[in-house]
This record gives sequence, structure tokens and C-alpha cells, in this order.
Amino acid sequence: MSKYISFRRPDGVPSFGRLDGDTVHDLGAQGQAAFLKDALAGDLAALAATATYARADVRLLPVVPNPDKILCVGLNYATHVAETGREQKEHPAIFTRWADTLIADGEPLLRPKESVRFDYEGELAVVIGKGGRRIPRAKAMEHVAGYSIFNDASVRDWQRHNIQFTPGKNFPATGAFGPALVTPDEVGDLSSQRVTTTLNGQVVQDQPISDLIWDIAFVIEYCSTFTELRPGDVIATGTPGGVGDKRTPPLYMKAGDRVDVSVGVIGTLSNPVNDEI
Amino acid sequence: MSKYISFRRPDGVPSFGRLDGDTVHDLGAQGQAAFLKDALAGDLAALAATATYARADVRLLPVVPNPDKILCVGLNYATHVAETGREQKEHPAIFTRWADTLIADGEPLLRPKESVRFDYEGELAVVIGKGGRRIPRAKAMEHVAGYSIFNDASVRDWQRHNIQFTPGKNFPATGAFGPALVTPDEVGDLSSQRVTTTLNGQVVQDQPISDLIWDIAFVIEYCSTFTELRPGDVIATGTPGGVGDKRTPPLYMKAGDRVDVSVGVIGTLSNPVNDEI
Repeated sequence: MSKYISFRRPDGVPSFGRLDGDTVHDLGAQGQAAFLKDALAGDLAALAATATYARADVRLLPVVPNPDKILCVGLNYATHVAETGREQKEHPAIFTRWADTLIADGEPLLRPKESVRFDYEGELAVVIGKGGRRIPRAKAMEHVAGYSIFNDASVRDWQRHNIQFTPGKNFPATGAFGPALVTPDEVGDLSSQRVTTTLNGQVVQDQPISDLIWDIAFVIEYCSTFTELRPGDVIATGTPGGVGDKRTPPLYMKAGDRVDVSVGVIGTLSNPVNDEI
Repeated sequence: MSKYISFRRPDGVPSFGRLDGDTVHDLGAQGQAAFLKDALAGDLAALAATATYARADVRLLPVVPNPDKILCVGLNYATHVAETGREQKEHPAIFTRWADTLIADGEPLLRPKESVRFDYEGELAVVIGKGGRRIPRAKAMEHVAGYSIFNDASVRDWQRHNIQFTPGKNFPATGAFGPALVTPDEVGDLSSQRVTTTLNGQVVQDQPISDLIWDIAFVIEYCSTFTELRPGDVIATGTPGGVGDKRTPPLYMKAGDRVDVSVGVIGTLSNPVNDEI
């Protein structure tokens, strides 16, 4: 039992729970909102269910709907560095998202009115359990609560307006995150597991996690050097080569598309694409 | 009466209030924490004092201690664009800080252990009152609660690790913000007012606000296009030429220094510099 989700209860109140097949065990105190990040520093496995629902009766939220910090690693697969024409640096590129960009599995990614270059980026997401500052690499994995899947969808025209990515990475409903948090013991060895993105069923990205230039432990050490990590913080570890913006001809997401990101045993994050109205 | 501060009451509980000379009129409900951002969407001038203190009896906090979003404009004065050797683009560069980087007027800026290139950046700060999305330029100034002063102190070595500024702009205690929020009616016409930074009394930056490449209204329109602005959000409008990193020889901040940033009638933000222990 090591998959956790955030969701709205049948009455609309947000909570979080353990997913057991098609059954959701609500782990939040009843009668009030409850959030996974507030439980992540403790022992999730020790929490007792306060209610039980059928999976179909709750509405998924992003795995962590309200992280304090979302850190995204850019340029973390050599294939992606190469396709962007950028040089390989000695340190990772880190940019940020705000939590109001996040959507759950199944919700539509929204192409903003201002863009004609809306692109997918399938990624492995790391969710921090125990917080910390200046976490040494050798201890970094002890700070991982679990893994999930991220689609760091990018508004390429706005990402390239200037030298900082912020505008292109922070339109609402461009960060798909889910469906579940899977604990490290259940995920096992990630290195041979693959990040695979399909657009309308066609494979557009497919690469093993072992191809990460900066591995998870290094990224935790690096990021926690300059900022304190807290329970529920999210690190999107970077996207493999194959993004739509660098294809000839370019391949952008459009209304009616469906984009799926699978990461090994963690599962599949699946989102339709809509135009913002 | 149009200067507002955030502070800790003599008993340590955070609140906010109106500053009238050496008198602080507490505007927060007594017996609980109160935050300026929660009042900014309403009419600050209509709030009645719940207590009064001598200025010396409260401890300043950053003007908004807990903004949801801090947006920083890079490269917004031609002199600074020129000294960085970068090209002038058609859109502003926007990067972000987290609120845990902020310190108040009078608190020490901390050079992190990892850096030997700790630099000042004096700036005008805009604090959002009424929130919004896709705010048109012509209406943008209606969304400004007031102005303050920002020292966007930069860990240059970490800022240049890769192409995104996040690491160099997010070490704790590198974002000085204060001392007060000054309302637009009291600030008057900003264009001829100057951003002046001194390091140990020596003028190192000095330029009028009219030199901004992208003015305040444009920046609000631009940022609110990709993200929703909310009461208390902060826009640091960019720094003039004269940063220490681009001088020959370079001029970095070190323990024992004092850096003052003055912006026209808004006042002076003054911080000592310490090494992180």
C-alpha cells in the first residue's frame, strides 16, 4: 500500500489518501480540508483511514496541490541539451513554477490565447518528505517521500521572450502532476525505468532515468544548498529529448490532443489538451 | 498618513500598521497574527488602529513578509543591459524569488558560505493591491497598492552556474525589502525620482525611474498575462547600471559593509552585510 493521492471528497472538500486498487482510503481528518504535504514529514504508512470511497467518487487533485516550492531542472538529458543547441554546463539549470500552474491527472492542459507554441515535456517528479537545507548527496534519498509524474508543458513563445523561462512556465493549467505519489520502496531501482511521452498515441519522448545528467541525489543536494526544502516541495527532474518545439516541422499540442507521460512502474499521467476559452 | 509597515509587536506576534513619524498605529486584530497582504485588497486608509506603539518598540518585518509571488524584472535599465553585455530584447526578463529570501530594513544581508561574489542591486518595488489577470496597461496603476524599496542582492557565482538565475537569487536573507509601503498619492510622479545605491557611503548606482525600459504599467500588464497577480505580490522593477560584478576591479559586498538603497521620496532601505556563520 504505497500509492497516495490528493483529491476532493464527494462533498468537494480537499483531502489526501492511500490508493488501493479502486479504493481510496481517506487519511485526512473528517469535516475539514486536509493536505498531503502536511503529512509528508511524518509516517504516511501509520495513518489510519477516516473514510473510504470508490476511486470514481473522488476528484483527483495534483498529487501535492499546494507545494511551497516547485523546482524544475532544465537541460538534464543530453539529448535535450543537444536539440536546444545549448552547451553543457557544470551545474544544472533551475527554474521555478508557482502552484497555481498545476493540474491533476485527467484535467485539460490549457493552451493560452497568447500562444501558438504549446509543447509537452514529460518528466519524473520527486516529492520531498523530510525537509532540510544543505542536504548532502549521501543522505539525499532519505528526504524523498516518493515519486510522481510531471508534464512541464511549456509556452515556448513566452519562454523565449527573454533569457529567463518564468513566463513560459507559469501560465495556469500548464503543469500536470500526478496521478499518484508512489513510495520509493514500491518504485525500486529507477535507473532502468523510462520516461515515455506519447502525443495522441505516438511516442515522442522515451529515455531511461539513468540518462539524467544530474541524478536525483545531486539535484537535492544542489537545490537545498541555496534554498530550504520542505515537505511537499516538488522537483521536476527535466525532460528527455524529443520536445515538439525542436522537431522539423515543429509538433505543438492543440485542442483535442491527448498527452500521456509514463514513468516506469510509477504509472501514467494522462491529460487532454484544450484551448483556453 | 500613507506609510505602512509590517512588524512584530512587542510580544513578538506579527502585524502591520500605519507609520506616523515615530508612532506605529497597529491595524491588525489584537491577540492574533495579522498580515498586510490580507488587507491590501481593501481600503487601508479606512482601518482603525487597534493599538499604538513607539516605532522603537516594534521590530520591522519585510514590508510584505509573505507574498505569494515575487516577480523580478531583469535587465530593465539600458546601462545595466550594456554592462552585462547582453542584447536588448523585445520583452522583459522575469525571474522569481521565494518569500523566505526576504529580510527587513536593518537586518543583515547574508553572504552565503558558498559564494565569493555577493552583489547589491538597488530597485524600486511595486506592491500589488487589487489582484487580477490580463490587466490592461491603461488600468494597471489601479492595481498598485504602493511602492517600496528592494535590494535584490545576488549571489553572482550561483546566478551564473547555468542559464537560469534561480540559484543566485534565492539564498536566504538576500532580498532586503522595506522599510515601508508608501501609497501612490504620497509618492507622486515617480519618473524624475532616482534609485540610488550606496555601499559604505559611496554611490554605486544612481538613475532616474524614467530610465526604466519597461515601465510599471507595462510590467503589470505583461506579468498578469501569464500569471494571476494577488494582493501583496511584489514586482522588483530591475536594477540600474553599476552593479559590483561588472566593475573593474569587481566590487563585492563583504562582512561589515553597509548598503543603502534610496528611491526618491519613498525613503531609504539600509542593511548591514554579514557572512553566514
